[in-house]
Amino acid sequence: MTAQKILLVILDGIADRPCDALDGRTPLQAAATPVLDRLASEGICGIMDTIAPGIRPGSDTAHLSLLGYPPERYYTGRGPLEAEGCGIRMEPGMIGFRANFATIDENGAISDRRAGRIPSTTPLCEAIRDGVDLRTFGVEIFFEPGAGHRAALALRGDGLGANVTSNDPKHEGFPPLQIRPMTEAGSDQHTADVANEFLRQSQEILLDHPLNRERKLSGLAPANAVLIRGAGLMGRFEPFSEKWKMTGSVISAAALISGIGSAVGLEHIDIPGITGSADSDLGAKISRAESELERKDFVLMNIKGADEFGHDGMAEGKRDFIEVIDGALTPLLARTDIMIAICSDHTTPCSVKDHSGDPVPLLIRGPDVRVDSVTAFDEISVASGGLLRVRGGDLMPILVDLINRSQKYGA
Amino acid sequence: MTAQKILLVILDGIADRPCDALDGRTPLQAAATPVLDRLASEGICGIMDTIAPGIRPGSDTAHLSLLGYPPERYYTGRGPLEAEGCGIRMEPGMIGFRANFATIDENGAISDRRAGRIPSTTPLCEAIRDGVDLRTFGVEIFFEPGAGHRAALALRGDGLGANVTSNDPKHEGFPPLQIRPMTEAGSDQHTADVANEFLRQSQEILLDHPLNRERKLSGLAPANAVLIRGAGLMGRFEPFSEKWKMTGSVISAAALISGIGSAVGLEHIDIPGITGSADSDLGAKISRAESELERKDFVLMNIKGADEFGHDGMAEGKRDFIEVIDGALTPLLARTDIMIAICSDHTTPCSVKDHSGDPVPLLIRGPDVRVDSVTAFDEISVASGGLLRVRGGDLMPILVDLINRSQKYGA
Repeated sequence: MTAQKILLVILDGIADRPCDALDGRTPLQAAATPVLDRLASEGICGIMDTIAPGIRPGSDTAHLSLLGYPPERYYTGRGPLEAEGCGIRMEPGMIGFRANFATIDENGAISDRRAGRIPSTTPLCEAIRDGVDLRTFGVEIFFEPGAGHRAALALRGDGLGANVTSNDPKHEGFPPLQIRPMTEAGSDQHTADVANEFLRQSQEILLDHPLNRERKLSGLAPANAVLIRGAGLMGRFEPFSEKWKMTGSVISAAALISGIGSAVGLEHIDIPGITGSADSDLGAKISRAESELERKDFVLMNIKGADEFGHDGMAEGKRDFIEVIDGALTPLLARTDIMIAICSDHTTPCSVKDHSGDPVPLLIRGPDVRVDSVTAFDEISVASGGLLRVRGGDLMPILVDLINRSQKYGA
Repeated sequence: MTAQKILLVILDGIADRPCDALDGRTPLQAAATPVLDRLASEGICGIMDTIAPGIRPGSDTAHLSLLGYPPERYYTGRGPLEAEGCGIRMEPGMIGFRANFATIDENGAISDRRAGRIPSTTPLCEAIRDGVDLRTFGVEIFFEPGAGHRAALALRGDGLGANVTSNDPKHEGFPPLQIRPMTEAGSDQHTADVANEFLRQSQEILLDHPLNRERKLSGLAPANAVLIRGAGLMGRFEPFSEKWKMTGSVISAAALISGIGSAVGLEHIDIPGITGSADSDLGAKISRAESELERKDFVLMNIKGADEFGHDGMAEGKRDFIEVIDGALTPLLARTDIMIAICSDHTTPCSVKDHSGDPVPLLIRGPDVRVDSVTAFDEISVASGGLLRVRGGDLMPILVDLINRSQKYGA
């Protein structure tokens, strides 16, 4: 039997370095992971540099690389990908920003950079979208809510540059900054002018918005200012369906990841109850991935919680959540008909509290793979596996070939 | 704990192929190396192609690659690097040559290509530097002694090309050759003219130099001619401190290696008693490396003797000298606070008596590394280590990341 479908499971930031709190083991070594270990036993394993050895990847550059889009060619900053993930259909040439709502006091200083962690900003985003008018600049705006206090801004118009600063002063007690061009180019000045006017009009709209009046009456911080950052120019992505001759979906609670999927042409599947944190409904994710594979050739599923424990330096919490993930993956044991790849996008060592450039574990399990002798899925065990050491950019060619859909090069 | 400093120990030419004289073992396998083996047990190992698989590196191209300077971009011949190593401050555009003193007889034929292995040529180099006048060519000369009969020549001026031949006939009994341009370019003709005039004037100066009169009276071969070779144009090196955001030093008895270090901006540390051969004071090297790391982020230390045994085809001598090196490395066992990388720059098989393109062993030992199960430092054992197979150009990114000083690519 040959597999027809590929499920790529990215366990975000699950890889680690030896942790003192775990007696020198990594969380993956310390966790009881019978499901991952059985998949490793039935498959072929290795280590993978998602970009290149020693290169410390962002989640964005790593996912681009794993999908076969070399970041040095395709990565233009986080803003446009995040905007795409918030549901803005980014076209090449549009400028995207990450945005979030904040609270400013009567003196104009920021008193809360997350607007009291407001749970949803949908009505505020609608008011801004409807109210802000940038036609005198020849620019159309797009503004969509993300999770919690987060949102995304996009600008469409001629002659817009992406090299502009943020208005986020990074510290509370200071007023928002003016957006400034970072080069002498007229296009960057133009974007700065447009963005400053957008921020001015937004603030007027937010000042008297009913939701903010309500929040103030309830003693909550109003979401009366917008901070924007991470400006980037949307590039042109070769569609996934043309590049790999496969249809596909992306399942992720993180706007950045669903944005990357969406930018390359994967269908973003929205699932209620998934959060990108340890409280996410992983079972819903797995079962939706399985049902997506009924109608698609490829599913990218990102499971994010372990990364957060790494960023917080919580080795024991990371170990425990890995056991939760392992349990959630149980249905995959029975799916011997599909090609399953499981890896991390980067290492997030608890000792570093950020990403590192260490390679990540990779396992591929499905029909026809050359099963090796690895019986445990952790950073050290997989290094003696049959895949040896590969790069992120190798993954899609390997998977596409294992389901016999690769193009022959030569005769 | 995170390491703050990196010590890169390059055991020049220590890697080998199986040797008949050692019952099919390599010198590293045959030698008793308790220190290297313990470092391997406590670290992560692998094999490394210093340039690329099967590419037979010079010491110069290998060291450039290991420091993160791809030789295909940065290597412009041995001359300018050797000149830098002899203390000439090479600027981009200058032409460097390797030089050595020789003896010519009354008929002008070379009777000794190494001038009776004259131990020092400092007064002769001074006389040449002061006496040779190339101002009619618009060219300034630099001429510095190296070890023994060796020296280096550099030329500074407009329109100098580097594609010129050597004047060394390679065999005794023949007169020195004329330097010739290797292309039709006027710049190469210009360099050839300048070099020939330099050689003519040098020979006049050497003929009656007091040191040579003295040597003749003592029955020693006079150093009355200069042979030059390896012409190359000095390139522009991105400073090490900018490239890796680290300060650094180089410790090496070989002018070529210290020249490479110096060219990229490492401080060359001169240590009395180190010779680049088996009689070198290795203890002085190690303790100086440790003290350099008090004030610098990075030290490159090259230990050369094993390479000479390889070039001479002496497997047993190589094995025995490896044991001497191993003993000298003992102080490193206690340095669990720094990131230590130990490798070779190339393989120098006793059976080949020259470099080969086989990969070299690599071990990295320090805080936070993913310790593997390798317990012996030799070409075959390390191949099952957790680093698997990397390239020379990967080494610095890996090390910089392991001390958490790498830049994140993406977000």
